[in-house]
Amino acid sequence: MSRTTITRLREKGSTERADLDALLDSCILGHFGLVGDDGHPVVIPTAIVRDGDRVLAHGSTGSPWMRRLADGVPTCLTVTALDGVVVARSAFESSLHYRSAVLFGACKRLDDPDAALDLITERLIPGRKDEIRRPKKSELAATLVLELPIDEWSLKISAGWPDDPDDDVAGDSWAGVVPMITSYAAPQPAPDLRAGIDVPGSVRRFGSG
Amino acid sequence: MSRTTITRLREKGSTERADLDALLDSCILGHFGLVGDDGHPVVIPTAIVRDGDRVLAHGSTGSPWMRRLADGVPTCLTVTALDGVVVARSAFESSLHYRSAVLFGACKRLDDPDAALDLITERLIPGRKDEIRRPKKSELAATLVLELPIDEWSLKISAGWPDDPDDDVAGDSWAGVVPMITSYAAPQPAPDLRAGIDVPGSVRRFGSG
Repeated sequence: MSRTTITRLREKGSTERADLDALLDSCILGHFGLVGDDGHPVVIPTAIVRDGDRVLAHGSTGSPWMRRLADGVPTCLTVTALDGVVVARSAFESSLHYRSAVLFGACKRLDDPDAALDLITERLIPGRKDEIRRPKKSELAATLVLELPIDEWSLKISAGWPDDPDDDVAGDSWAGVVPMITSYAAPQPAPDLRAGIDVPGSVRRFGSG
Repeated sequence: MSRTTITRLREKGSTERADLDALLDSCILGHFGLVGDDGHPVVIPTAIVRDGDRVLAHGSTGSPWMRRLADGVPTCLTVTALDGVVVARSAFESSLHYRSAVLFGACKRLDDPDAALDLITERLIPGRKDEIRRPKKSELAATLVLELPIDEWSLKISAGWPDDPDDDVAGDSWAGVVPMITSYAAPQPAPDLRAGIDVPGSVRRFGSG
């Protein structure tokens, strides 16, 4: 039995848009791939936010790679969630639980990023938008917001139990899954926080949603 | 004050190899970028393990992208850890704590992957190697192990407090950091686990190291 065969059994491809959206909505980090002037690939990590049929990302107007993406070069956005460790009865069958989406296309720069930036803030720190001042014009001018349409994509989900052959199952080795969890620790106030300012609702709710 | 300026202050580049190793040793997931035959970039997620001055990755001999990497095409491996959410007094200054390494080079396929696979198993599930049988020849033949030399790389670390301007600090908004933590939940035994087999030491130690 080849690893390929097993891989194909266990790593289920999904063409369900709902599965894609669930992954994108549970991750705040994505990796954009693009090709540089020299023909070499580069992969840059950035926060991502799904909004309907598009993925938003933002960065500094001073970032060369963000500017190159804004020019509409071909790109690949990969978003991966690690969900657990599959402990099989052999090294060969041991693996990871993951969900991974690959989106192909080209980004477009948003000319009026105000509303998109609100969406991004709301996704990264839900409720925070209403606790803070509006962005300044100078801040908006310094921020580049990219939109990647959700169009051409694929999704792989590895979520099964160890798939050991019968002679290994009959042996004495344990098998199972150890789930991985991402959580938030207690908020740490900034050293320059003025006295008497309580932890706000947005921060108190972190990790509870 | 432009976002670029602030970004440059807060996101510290590091040229310390110890910082790079600390990041690589704390992550089990990396994203390889490469360029396809059609000139388009693609980004593939894979488990990674640092071993001295090289990064190891493995996959199925049936994977087209792994085989292309094995051919020695130019690649970029990006490894990113999210460490927290920076909650500033404005959306503009809010950001993420992260560590991100970008390694450039080309992979080489290991002809004798046995020892490298032991290293990979030991890194992903420490102690597991001694609890299970040795890999079979057919399993080794079905597995492709890649080595990327740690040679040309850069590292960015965002770990500071919110860097709000004075007029925002004087206001009523809270500011601080919410750390993110990855942990492991209780092991779930496989449905076909035979009775009387206890959770082994490797799995009991998960998350305690």
